[in-house]
Amino acid sequence: MTAPATPDLRELARQARAAARVVARAPAEVRHRALVAIAGELRARAASILDANAGDVATGQARGLSAAMLDRLRLDPGRLEAVAGAVLAIADQPELVGRVERAEPRADGLELARMRIPLGVIAIVYESRPNVTVDAAALCLKAGNAAILRGGSEAFASNQALGAAIAAGLASAGLPPAAVTLVPSTDRDAIRELVQLDDLIDLCIPRGGEGLIRYVAEHARVPVIKHYKGVCHLYVHAAADLDMALALAENGKVQRPGVCNAIETILVDRAVAPAFVPRLAARFAELGVEVRGDATVRALGGAAIVAATDDDWAAEYLDLIVAVRVVDDLDAALAHIERWGSDHTESIVTADDAAAARFLREVGSSTVMHNASTRFADGGQLGLGAEIGISTTRLHAYGPMGAEGLTTTKFIVRGQGHVRT
Amino acid sequence: MTAPATPDLRELARQARAAARVVARAPAEVRHRALVAIAGELRARAASILDANAGDVATGQARGLSAAMLDRLRLDPGRLEAVAGAVLAIADQPELVGRVERAEPRADGLELARMRIPLGVIAIVYESRPNVTVDAAALCLKAGNAAILRGGSEAFASNQALGAAIAAGLASAGLPPAAVTLVPSTDRDAIRELVQLDDLIDLCIPRGGEGLIRYVAEHARVPVIKHYKGVCHLYVHAAADLDMALALAENGKVQRPGVCNAIETILVDRAVAPAFVPRLAARFAELGVEVRGDATVRALGGAAIVAATDDDWAAEYLDLIVAVRVVDDLDAALAHIERWGSDHTESIVTADDAAAARFLREVGSSTVMHNASTRFADGGQLGLGAEIGISTTRLHAYGPMGAEGLTTTKFIVRGQGHVRT
Repeated sequence: MTAPATPDLRELARQARAAARVVARAPAEVRHRALVAIAGELRARAASILDANAGDVATGQARGLSAAMLDRLRLDPGRLEAVAGAVLAIADQPELVGRVERAEPRADGLELARMRIPLGVIAIVYESRPNVTVDAAALCLKAGNAAILRGGSEAFASNQALGAAIAAGLASAGLPPAAVTLVPSTDRDAIRELVQLDDLIDLCIPRGGEGLIRYVAEHARVPVIKHYKGVCHLYVHAAADLDMALALAENGKVQRPGVCNAIETILVDRAVAPAFVPRLAARFAELGVEVRGDATVRALGGAAIVAATDDDWAAEYLDLIVAVRVVDDLDAALAHIERWGSDHTESIVTADDAAAARFLREVGSSTVMHNASTRFADGGQLGLGAEIGISTTRLHAYGPMGAEGLTTTKFIVRGQGHVRT
Repeated sequence: MTAPATPDLRELARQARAAARVVARAPAEVRHRALVAIAGELRARAASILDANAGDVATGQARGLSAAMLDRLRLDPGRLEAVAGAVLAIADQPELVGRVERAEPRADGLELARMRIPLGVIAIVYESRPNVTVDAAALCLKAGNAAILRGGSEAFASNQALGAAIAAGLASAGLPPAAVTLVPSTDRDAIRELVQLDDLIDLCIPRGGEGLIRYVAEHARVPVIKHYKGVCHLYVHAAADLDMALALAENGKVQRPGVCNAIETILVDRAVAPAFVPRLAARFAELGVEVRGDATVRALGGAAIVAATDDDWAAEYLDLIVAVRVVDDLDAALAHIERWGSDHTESIVTADDAAAARFLREVGSSTVMHNASTRFADGGQLGLGAEIGISTTRLHAYGPMGAEGLTTTKFIVRGQGHVRT
């Protein structure tokens, strides 16, 4: 399927803005009904969705997409059912819109509070995984927003089929179709045009590789929350339980190496390096993990260890490769993370509570851990329900970002004729 | 005093970034000591600050600045003491940095929480009022940030003198001078260069007129929180207590007409217009307020009322002028505010709780009120302490923005060797 000629994006965004007002004012039960209906439509239309997806996969194969890309693109009955299940889980999350928070009376009887409200129109720009189309639409609706979705060209037919299911679900709840708009163009210029509509769009979330995120940041006039890469660190402190450290290293690196919360660099305190590095090297050799180490690591870990360069400290491998460095102490570990980290997730292994407290406090990344696997840095694991992604932008939402991250608050003031003197 | 040649802004920002790390990690008592010392320096250096300010005022007079501009620029002993007092009040606000929030254990014993942390380096770009230099510096320090301040050319000498007091206060607490950097240039190009340093600056807050804010939004690559204009509405509902409505109209318009939370437009429900408009017109005539009304208002209010045009619905007069329009009902009031409002502050006067609830819920502005004067839309009044301004950007901080708005949160995870399966 080919994309039509460049659409009038300003007109699409204008319609999305009008729809956002309707969604924001719709009762919670209407939005809930829409989400349940979308899940139902995904199930009812499974055959046509999988058919469209098979077409995308075939096109991708013919164009020589990598096996990893094809895997991200591919839907099957199990994956599609998981997508529908996620929509139902989002529908059943607690309602956010109109929630009154931080209520406090003043001494003079003026009542102050904040009310949680939608952001408005949210543009999400992403790449190959078609499930993002449904996750993003569902989270935006849950939070009372309209969504403008611009997926990747390789998933165009899949996204159109998923979009039809979403549209049918919206219609059955009486919500306007523009509440979820799929940009009918996979042209990169469409992204540029979209992110400059700052009178109509309240937020743009780019999700994808470095190239996409840079492109959005460069052209955007709307606020942007970046979902950038994860160069996650595990720091094995001098007072670490080495069995625990080995288990956390293995879990963080091997359980699912292709995701952003996997470990990319392990820092080993010099005090425990002679005891730990040989065990780590042996275990990772068994697991098929390539280790790239500094001189000390290579001396302690054996001939199989590749010499690391500065590029390795910056690398997000997303693969069975890990960089390992020996550091003098906690200060050196903090300095390494400050220099090379990506503000995603870092974990310290230690039995020393003072060292842990300093690490938790001083590391500025969006998720910081003590004696836990970096793999927990995920909205579902951290109690947010489904996530729209992991923000590496400090403003508004930092770290895993769920439906609440797609809202803001306004101030509410109730008086009995109070005037200011 | 003339500004030196364009400084190396990237180098200044790099130093600010290094200083931000020191400020973020400094104990609360060190930042408290710095703020107390800054207040002391402002008092000790009052003579030289007022002298520098007198020079700016004389230059401004020679250049033909308006009386209003000169008033905003002018410091006197009372105003300077108020600035010092505000710094002490900020120092004594509760500590934010490192505060643990939303702690919750998971069933498997993993402990989740969020920790409040500074944003990093904050650039504030503003116009004539020199007190902003001190307020902004104090709020940024309170929240653990470094500040880069770029004030207006008309206040250059005043800002330099205030900056010297701030630098002395920082030094006496052992904090680096780059924790508060005054850009030594009043060139507009310096603003453009500054707001493109997205690898060094975490947030830019423009405070000032429409021209300045547009300029920043157009050139920025760093996140921007706009402090835009306030076209604030008072809606006199059909079920309003008209005595209360009159008092709120007077307080909102007259108490301090030159500020952004003053009323600019009064919407009168058709049901009460015959009873209310004549009283409003008579009272405002006594107070010297020019009323610009639609045809119904003119018919009811008498010959002194000027005919309003669409420009009046959009106007932020900041003066003793008010636009008055009769609307059919609550829906029409909501539509008018949606069309003409600036997301700042709106208030409904009514004894009908259902109408009030709908207004509070459906008006999307950053502060929405019931039976209260719009003049309460202010960080001090709404319990935030001093404010850096009033955000009309929905992201991160919407409405009055205090020290907390200059922070973010990170996720904290504590386990006992927890791995993900």
